[in-house]
Amino acid sequence: MEKFTEIKGGITAPLGFTASGIYAGIKATNKTKRDIAVIFSEVPCVAAGKFTTNQVKAAPVKVSIKNVKNKQAYAIIANSGNANACTGVRGVEDAKKMISATAKALGVKDSEVLICSTGRIGVFMPIQKIEEGITKAVKKLSRNGSKDAAEAIMTSDSCKKEVALSFQINGKRVTIGAIAKGAGMIDPNMATMLCFITTDASIDKKSLDRALGIAVEQSFNSITVDGDMSTNDTVLLLANGLAENEALTPAHPEFSKFQNALNTITRKLALMIVADGEGISRVVEVVVKGASSHRDAKLAAESVANSSLVKCAWCGGDPNWGRIMDAIGYSSAKIKEECVDIYYDGSCAVQNGIVSKTPVEKLRKIVKKPRFTITINLHLGSGEHTVYASDITEKYVELNKSE
Amino acid sequence: MEKFTEIKGGITAPLGFTASGIYAGIKATNKTKRDIAVIFSEVPCVAAGKFTTNQVKAAPVKVSIKNVKNKQAYAIIANSGNANACTGVRGVEDAKKMISATAKALGVKDSEVLICSTGRIGVFMPIQKIEEGITKAVKKLSRNGSKDAAEAIMTSDSCKKEVALSFQINGKRVTIGAIAKGAGMIDPNMATMLCFITTDASIDKKSLDRALGIAVEQSFNSITVDGDMSTNDTVLLLANGLAENEALTPAHPEFSKFQNALNTITRKLALMIVADGEGISRVVEVVVKGASSHRDAKLAAESVANSSLVKCAWCGGDPNWGRIMDAIGYSSAKIKEECVDIYYDGSCAVQNGIVSKTPVEKLRKIVKKPRFTITINLHLGSGEHTVYASDITEKYVELNKSE
Repeated sequence: MEKFTEIKGGITAPLGFTASGIYAGIKATNKTKRDIAVIFSEVPCVAAGKFTTNQVKAAPVKVSIKNVKNKQAYAIIANSGNANACTGVRGVEDAKKMISATAKALGVKDSEVLICSTGRIGVFMPIQKIEEGITKAVKKLSRNGSKDAAEAIMTSDSCKKEVALSFQINGKRVTIGAIAKGAGMIDPNMATMLCFITTDASIDKKSLDRALGIAVEQSFNSITVDGDMSTNDTVLLLANGLAENEALTPAHPEFSKFQNALNTITRKLALMIVADGEGISRVVEVVVKGASSHRDAKLAAESVANSSLVKCAWCGGDPNWGRIMDAIGYSSAKIKEECVDIYYDGSCAVQNGIVSKTPVEKLRKIVKKPRFTITINLHLGSGEHTVYASDITEKYVELNKSE
Repeated sequence: MEKFTEIKGGITAPLGFTASGIYAGIKATNKTKRDIAVIFSEVPCVAAGKFTTNQVKAAPVKVSIKNVKNKQAYAIIANSGNANACTGVRGVEDAKKMISATAKALGVKDSEVLICSTGRIGVFMPIQKIEEGITKAVKKLSRNGSKDAAEAIMTSDSCKKEVALSFQINGKRVTIGAIAKGAGMIDPNMATMLCFITTDASIDKKSLDRALGIAVEQSFNSITVDGDMSTNDTVLLLANGLAENEALTPAHPEFSKFQNALNTITRKLALMIVADGEGISRVVEVVVKGASSHRDAKLAAESVANSSLVKCAWCGGDPNWGRIMDAIGYSSAKIKEECVDIYYDGSCAVQNGIVSKTPVEKLRKIVKKPRFTITINLHLGSGEHTVYASDITEKYVELNKSE
């Protein structure tokens, strides 16, 4: 995979995009924290979106799933402090009011605005405050607004998450920028993952959607913090074509460069999400190889990464491979106990399903590191999948137990 | 359901059963704790067993799955301190050696002995110590040996788990006794659940197996502590016929009394397992009603009961129903958000998918209790299922993080 050079500017790094983030008063507990973000393109974009598969979908998710299908989009309106989830008919009306207020202030159509919310579930939106906030946010739109927007979508995140990359497509400079939020370990009312990506690439809607699907699968769909999928999880991508490159399609010889850049950006943000949060002491890459199918590799990797007992062992720096054998065994992935090998970084812990000759002390040193890799080879086929996971700590429970 | 009166004597309460528990030196860290148990019937029994569905099965599980199919059984040999799991061919040989030593000391056939182990995974058995211990344990068999046997199968359990009930079948006194171990919250190497049940009822093998299946489904298969299924989970039931009741079959008019007694015993032990352990502060009954099917009710209830975020909220006494909506939403059970009602004990928290008028303070008082019930009505059908769950606490992580 190419190496891309990071540039500054986050979501406003691509040509033609402005952003802003302001405080509208949604976050009653933190009166100084920004809570409304607007992202805007001066020319129309094609849009793509990936949304939570949770059957309980927040009102803004329902509305964005519809609007992302429209031919063109200009803007994203987002807020933190209230998820507008489990809010029934009134929730959908409120989401539509937010869209209308944004469209009106920007001089575009309602159908050209996408929306996301994150925060507490089950509370109605303070819609008047928000409408006033939207007017204010639109006035503040600027080419330097990425940081403010990134801050305005934060909930329990301990730091802003921004990234941007630039590369050449047939001699034209193309830029992709993004902001994200998410730190599931910390505040469970707000376990939501949001990611907004902008690009000045020229690309058609269908190709954009395809590229986003691939990028999300190897990034946000490959991280696991607590196994819970939020009602609000959303990734949105806007492409405005101002780079004036030869229009990209999967058949274009440079398409893979665009795809790789998008993969790199989403992977970086996904890892920032896993690593964020006071509650975490280790980030662990769980690689399952040799599965009967990709599906089986994924099932086994997720079973390990979501096991409370495995995560506790990581926290304690305990190379407890018995818990890993247990977790792959109760997953739905096909396994043969006597074929399983398990490695901690490069060191073999289990060979053919039983204990290896590696001294436990050597494995213990690896598991005490802040970051390490566990590779599980099932020796049944060529299915492979990687999940990025974190441990579970006393701090996690403490932080998640109260409102 | 009938109410049964508990009697003393545990697993040796039924006629003809003796038991013992001794220290053989398997538990290197606790040199005074019993670690080998033998249960014996003076006359041949019919046997039934239910075993872990984990694909990684411990050696003793593999052997017992085979032996339980034999026409008759006399004894169970069990040990704590070593699970004999992930020990390959040698593990199976060791399990067979344990069976041979037991059969020889008792003067029965190898095929008439069942075996269970619990403890650390991936360590070979100290087989010589164990064989010597078995000889010692058989010599100690007594009609008062239930307590010692119950102690010898304990790992992280904070207390012995014993129960026995007596009732009449057509004028004959029939007794069922049982011991169990399990406290998954505490020591994850030893998250195993074991339960041994004896009865003097006269009943054929097929009917016994059927009755055990029903009992296990509503008890051990309805508790969840950390969602992980052990490599060693086993329930064994021996019936020796010494009560001389009219032989029971499902068609017998008193069969349901036997079934109810067995259900009561297994339910009692299952709840003791959930409630055991320093790591827990609350036991929560999660009832899902109105699901499209029983399968859906079970999927939804287990999703709630296994959610780290839901469990953290319980720990903090936080009536956070948003996390419950989230957990049923990402389960595979069919739900319609706008149809969902959620009750904490008798108080409605959610009606038609949105917040009810019940004051949060009232709900908070309920969630702060050591035991309460959450009832989720999906209003889609008649499927119903109950799961007994516990919260997750800082203590849980602390206790599970090191070897």
